[in-house]
Amino acid sequence: MTNSNHSPTELPLGEGPVILELIRYDRETYDRFNNLGANEIIENLDSKKVNWVNVDGLQDKKILDKLQAHFCLHTLLVDDITNDQRPKAEEYDDYLFFTLKMLYRIEGRTIDYEQISFVLSTNYLISFQEKEGDLFDHFRERIRLDQGRVRKQQADYLLYRLLDTIVDNYYIILEKIGEQIEDIEEEIDKGSTHQTFKQIQKIKKELIFLRKAVYPLRDAVSKLVKGETSFIKDETLRFYADIYDHVVHLIDSLDTYKDLTSALMDIHMNTQNNRMTEVMKVLAVISTIFIPLTFIVGVYGMNFDNMPELHARWGYPLTWVVMVCIGAGMLLFFKKKKWF
Amino acid sequence: MTNSNHSPTELPLGEGPVILELIRYDRETYDRFNNLGANEIIENLDSKKVNWVNVDGLQDKKILDKLQAHFCLHTLLVDDITNDQRPKAEEYDDYLFFTLKMLYRIEGRTIDYEQISFVLSTNYLISFQEKEGDLFDHFRERIRLDQGRVRKQQADYLLYRLLDTIVDNYYIILEKIGEQIEDIEEEIDKGSTHQTFKQIQKIKKELIFLRKAVYPLRDAVSKLVKGETSFIKDETLRFYADIYDHVVHLIDSLDTYKDLTSALMDIHMNTQNNRMTEVMKVLAVISTIFIPLTFIVGVYGMNFDNMPELHARWGYPLTWVVMVCIGAGMLLFFKKKKWF
Amino acid sequence: MTNSNHSPTELPLGEGPVILELIRYDRETYDRFNNLGANEIIENLDSKKVNWVNVDGLQDKKILDKLQAHFCLHTLLVDDITNDQRPKAEEYDDYLFFTLKMLYRIEGRTIDYEQISFVLSTNYLISFQEKEGDLFDHFRERIRLDQGRVRKQQADYLLYRLLDTIVDNYYIILEKIGEQIEDIEEEIDKGSTHQTFKQIQKIKKELIFLRKAVYPLRDAVSKLVKGETSFIKDETLRFYADIYDHVVHLIDSLDTYKDLTSALMDIHMNTQNNRMTEVMKVLAVISTIFIPLTFIVGVYGMNFDNMPELHARWGYPLTWVVMVCIGAGMLLFFKKKKWF
Amino acid sequence: MTNSNHSPTELPLGEGPVILELIRYDRETYDRFNNLGANEIIENLDSKKVNWVNVDGLQDKKILDKLQAHFCLHTLLVDDITNDQRPKAEEYDDYLFFTLKMLYRIEGRTIDYEQISFVLSTNYLISFQEKEGDLFDHFRERIRLDQGRVRKQQADYLLYRLLDTIVDNYYIILEKIGEQIEDIEEEIDKGSTHQTFKQIQKIKKELIFLRKAVYPLRDAVSKLVKGETSFIKDETLRFYADIYDHVVHLIDSLDTYKDLTSALMDIHMNTQNNRMTEVMKVLAVISTIFIPLTFIVGVYGMNFDNMPELHARWGYPLTWVVMVCIGAGMLLFFKKKKWF
Amino acid sequence: MTNSNHSPTELPLGEGPVILELIRYDRETYDRFNNLGANEIIENLDSKKVNWVNVDGLQDKKILDKLQAHFCLHTLLVDDITNDQRPKAEEYDDYLFFTLKMLYRIEGRTIDYEQISFVLSTNYLISFQEKEGDLFDHFRERIRLDQGRVRKQQADYLLYRLLDTIVDNYYIILEKIGEQIEDIEEEIDKGSTHQTFKQIQKIKKELIFLRKAVYPLRDAVSKLVKGETSFIKDETLRFYADIYDHVVHLIDSLDTYKDLTSALMDIHMNTQNNRMTEVMKVLAVISTIFIPLTFIVGVYGMNFDNMPELHARWGYPLTWVVMVCIGAGMLLFFKKKKWF
Repeated sequence: MTNSNHSPTELPLGEGPVILELIRYDRETYDRFNNLGANEIIENLDSKKVNWVNVDGLQDKKILDKLQAHFCLHTLLVDDITNDQRPKAEEYDDYLFFTLKMLYRIEGRTIDYEQISFVLSTNYLISFQEKEGDLFDHFRERIRLDQGRVRKQQADYLLYRLLDTIVDNYYIILEKIGEQIEDIEEEIDKGSTHQTFKQIQKIKKELIFLRKAVYPLRDAVSKLVKGETSFIKDETLRFYADIYDHVVHLIDSLDTYKDLTSALMDIHMNTQNNRMTEVMKVLAVISTIFIPLTFIVGVYGMNFDNMPELHARWGYPLTWVVMVCIGAGMLLFFKKKKWF
Repeated sequence: MTNSNHSPTELPLGEGPVILELIRYDRETYDRFNNLGANEIIENLDSKKVNWVNVDGLQDKKILDKLQAHFCLHTLLVDDITNDQRPKAEEYDDYLFFTLKMLYRIEGRTIDYEQISFVLSTNYLISFQEKEGDLFDHFRERIRLDQGRVRKQQADYLLYRLLDTIVDNYYIILEKIGEQIEDIEEEIDKGSTHQTFKQIQKIKKELIFLRKAVYPLRDAVSKLVKGETSFIKDETLRFYADIYDHVVHLIDSLDTYKDLTSALMDIHMNTQNNRMTEVMKVLAVISTIFIPLTFIVGVYGMNFDNMPELHARWGYPLTWVVMVCIGAGMLLFFKKKKWF
Repeated sequence: MTNSNHSPTELPLGEGPVILELIRYDRETYDRFNNLGANEIIENLDSKKVNWVNVDGLQDKKILDKLQAHFCLHTLLVDDITNDQRPKAEEYDDYLFFTLKMLYRIEGRTIDYEQISFVLSTNYLISFQEKEGDLFDHFRERIRLDQGRVRKQQADYLLYRLLDTIVDNYYIILEKIGEQIEDIEEEIDKGSTHQTFKQIQKIKKELIFLRKAVYPLRDAVSKLVKGETSFIKDETLRFYADIYDHVVHLIDSLDTYKDLTSALMDIHMNTQNNRMTEVMKVLAVISTIFIPLTFIVGVYGMNFDNMPELHARWGYPLTWVVMVCIGAGMLLFFKKKKWF
Repeated sequence: MTNSNHSPTELPLGEGPVILELIRYDRETYDRFNNLGANEIIENLDSKKVNWVNVDGLQDKKILDKLQAHFCLHTLLVDDITNDQRPKAEEYDDYLFFTLKMLYRIEGRTIDYEQISFVLSTNYLISFQEKEGDLFDHFRERIRLDQGRVRKQQADYLLYRLLDTIVDNYYIILEKIGEQIEDIEEEIDKGSTHQTFKQIQKIKKELIFLRKAVYPLRDAVSKLVKGETSFIKDETLRFYADIYDHVVHLIDSLDTYKDLTSALMDIHMNTQNNRMTEVMKVLAVISTIFIPLTFIVGVYGMNFDNMPELHARWGYPLTWVVMVCIGAGMLLFFKKKKWF
Repeated sequence: MTNSNHSPTELPLGEGPVILELIRYDRETYDRFNNLGANEIIENLDSKKVNWVNVDGLQDKKILDKLQAHFCLHTLLVDDITNDQRPKAEEYDDYLFFTLKMLYRIEGRTIDYEQISFVLSTNYLISFQEKEGDLFDHFRERIRLDQGRVRKQQADYLLYRLLDTIVDNYYIILEKIGEQIEDIEEEIDKGSTHQTFKQIQKIKKELIFLRKAVYPLRDAVSKLVKGETSFIKDETLRFYADIYDHVVHLIDSLDTYKDLTSALMDIHMNTQNNRMTEVMKVLAVISTIFIPLTFIVGVYGMNFDNMPELHARWGYPLTWVVMVCIGAGMLLFFKKKKWF
């Protein structure tokens, strides 16, 4: 049952020890157990309260095995937790499994992500994260201080709040991308460079990855909303429906940004083409004016014995007159052609 | 229940005080209450008449709280009102929620929009707008003067009329875009510039935003038309079906305009390419004619002691003959190649 | 009920008087009433026969009002008749409403269209056209002469024949476009010009408009075919299914022509590019051959006192030898590069 | 009932007389009647055996009328046979109608096609072809020799075998296209010409036409497979399902080839661009090296009285040194820029 | 029943003898029979155990005939095994048929594939491969050593493990492609060449072929997951659902890679364009600076008798001053235009 050689892109192993945390609460009480071993966590579970077990790091096979044994987790489920997955919801007999990507925007302006998986049962919620650090610190504080309605609700509401926090963070990332698109638009107006092009490509790539994270989420959440699962109570369903609306809205925005980015590409290409045309026009104007003139002066630079024009009194000034006329004629011609 | 930290792109807060308005009518009577406080609005509601409560501005938390309390509005619903939403319809136990974008075309030719949300129950309709000023002044006057059938109908018909006004305004905006596309077509025929390109891009962008506003509307309205909600009576359903037809028609037109715009882009690109080719042709013709000639005159500009041609009697005129022949030959060659 | 300010792109008002016509027939009798007023039309209706009322022009509000009153037409239906609509079928209690576009190919090779709407009941069919002149003259003659099966059938068969005539005319228009595409293909083979490009764009635009007229027709006709309406009898259903097949076939052809047109665009662009490359090659060949040679002759055109080559016996002919070698070398180089 | 003026692209009339053939068989007996008139065919039908009536040519109205009369063929069905149709299956009360395109690859490497229609009843199958000659000769021989299972089966199996033969021939055509794509790939590697481009376009066009023939076939065959028709027995259904699989496989392959062809186009375009860039680089290198040098030699070709350099002892050789330095510097510059 | 002339792209015949293998096991026993003839295989089947018959090579008609006879395989099924098929699942009365492509990445970095077909019944599984060598050696060893749960399960679990192994191998191939895409990205940053372009095209082509193998797999596996077949037990269904998830995840990744590849193409094209523009700029700057200067020196190289400037004291230095001014002016102009 262990050692299965399944490996559709296994998640990279984290480093350091796996950190376990248990937050246990009901309307009246609140307890938080930090840095415990798996056994102590299991001992502290209280089936009359909401138990939120958070696992930071998946590199310790023993801990996973203990949890698997205690909560009767299916082999495939454990495989799903430790391997890169498409966001999805799956109902098992004793619990509901949900996995998705948690996105971070790191300062240097790239998007990082980790996979987070949830196992929801009637009175507990286990969350498996790839590494330490998540988006929930603010929310943990709210539970402790009994703010909002979370302490009055069950584990299904807890999962809703966590999912909601993750999905809201997608918005923040998307808004950043929106700002970048606007920045680039202004930049292009000033003059588009290869740098601009690279930024557009970076945004394009980020949108591709966001799309990969968000699109399947729609199906996954819709599965919950349909209300076929018994682990989400009817009164909580509307909240999940709200997440569903957010995800669909996100997808709309992703599509819009995709269109905007490809419009930016068009603008960039056009600016590049314009510049090229301008370069060619300057070259063409200068060349076509001076090449014939250079020919003329070349003619009278020839050393033939017999060139009467050279000895004529008005030869030189007349040559100038002719050349000025030709040059002016050319300029008029280009003016008419609207080359400048 | 308050203070929820939901924030998928919260709507920008309006300025100044929030303006409340109540229009109360039935077949015989009509009353309009302006600039009242929330409490006075609530006192003036008459459940035997149609009550239209209009809220201009969402920045005053207290007013929203009072309305929420009186009408038992769901937390999520209030969140939806104050945050940027995908157009959608949602049925709650006691009311129907509908939200969409109201678009304005401002003089300087850009499209502005605000989000408008409706809460419809049997005898009242609440509309929440981001800021003062809407498209309904003409229609308010019609209610007052008892024109059309609105005074004989219930709140569901009132909502229909408001939605219809909003959707009709989409048409006006779309027609403007249609006119602009035609203008640009004529412009391109005269000669396409970078300015033209920018206008095409602007239209493209406007269509992207319109699409984002109109596409989800289809699903939202279709939800109403299916007649599953009890807040819309059967005899009013056909009117909502009419809105649905309009929205689908709008989407058709949006797609058509999208295709037309991308056809415009093709024409613009082709015009640019043609111009480039023309520039290169002029450069090529002039250069290829005069470069060999300049070589020839260069030859006879050399100072070798021993150049018999220089001293020949017909050297100079023969050189001219040769050069004219070469030039003419080149011209014929280009003529044959159809370069001009 | 009147004066509704609905206006999603109202149809342009025709000029001149509205023309009413009534064709009344059964197996034995045939009557045609021309240029009557609305009242006289109504008086002449005979509920035991098939009554085809044709209205040419929608500009006369009074006539529409009288018809609306007599046939109990719904407000929304009258709005639909006078406004630009998506092709659609709608069932009302007492009649079936069907609206679509009737296309004409005018000589100067552009496509014109008008909206035509039908109201079908058990014993009458009303057709509303924007202006005088339609595709049905040949068919009116067939009714009069009792050719085909129309005189033996009811109003639903009459509507089928009219729709069929309209849809068949789409084919004629599409075939013309097909012929134009073939013409352009031959033209491009001879040499593609900016004129060719404009023709391709024109076809593209016509296909966009055809698509807008034909695509929604599929849904509209499919609604009739499903047989849910009581105004079309079972034995006539197969005929409507035939129209449905034609419409689907039309859509296939439209898609094919769209693909062919975009292939034409590719060919055009490639031809343009080839020409540009050819121009550049000629320029490059001539320039790269003569520019070094001109440099050499320039060298010996210098006036330095101390240039021994100038005074050497074989200086001049050797220079020629060198220049011919360089020129020939260049030509070989270009030959190897397959530049010509 | 005749003379209907339906004409969505009527099929072109064949020439010469229409050829009728009847193949009549059961387990024991086999008869083939050639070149008979319609009346004789009808007389020879034996309702206890399988009767395959094949009609080559649709130009003879009288024959069609006789068959229509005897087999009670619906007017619309006869229209469908004689007009260009989308592949489709239609069930009538007494028979099943199926129409599709039969494709031939003619030697000169173009695809030709004719429309073939089938009318299947319990004990007969009529096939209508546009012209003489089909893909079934090998199969007719198999029937005669009682090879395979066809003689033991009914008319529905006969139709399966004919359809299967037609669909298999699509594969042969597609494979030819596959081979051509591979040929072109090799050609492009050697050097892409305008000829290559034309071949890619030809393949693209053939794929467009194949798509038009094969895509609708999926729907048509799927209609048969669903088993709603009584003219196909349950035990034969699996064979039709096999045809369905083949058609879906064909569509997959068509899509793959479409992608491959557009990849070929990309490669072709890129090759063209590379060549253009190469041409421009040669031009730029030669020009930018020699133009400054020519300027320098021009300077010392001037005839000013007062040019001390001309009389300096090392003037001429120094000029050469300078020019060689400039030329070498330029070459280094281009080398660094990786222009060659 | 044999010799059917079906031939939608028949699979290429393998060479050498066909190799048969039987692996027979239950919880306690394990037997492996190698290189047996068809008759001996059949004799060794034990209906109380799981029997896995593996056929390497399809070229021996007799062996196939014997297997067909013993297992009552349908003609169409045998056709499907020996012909190129779309991945699909089909249920027959006595067994389930499943066919898909098994992909290998061969060292020289191309993807090779063979078709593998499975026939699953309650107590046996037959696998048909085109040639010797597969991905299952590691797994055969696991069966022998009784690792994992396979020995405790039935034939349906065996099929799951084989399918899983094949699908996991798709991931390995896809990851390789992912690595190549990243390599190319870095390469382009350094400077894109025609070689880079070819690599992008190769990846594009590989993705097209992968898509053809993986997309239809979704439908095939989904057919199994729906649980309509009796040959897969309910407790094994979840494992098949897991394969389904993997396939959908693969399709997501394929789409992502497709987008990334087309983004790479854009970057490549842009890099090419930039290089071209740079080349043209250098050419334009050098030409436009020196062409006017060359004209000037040409003027004073003319041999007119009457050119006062030539004899002026400051003629030569002044000419230089003028030329330097012009050159500097040009440079400033280009600087302002940001050409370098």
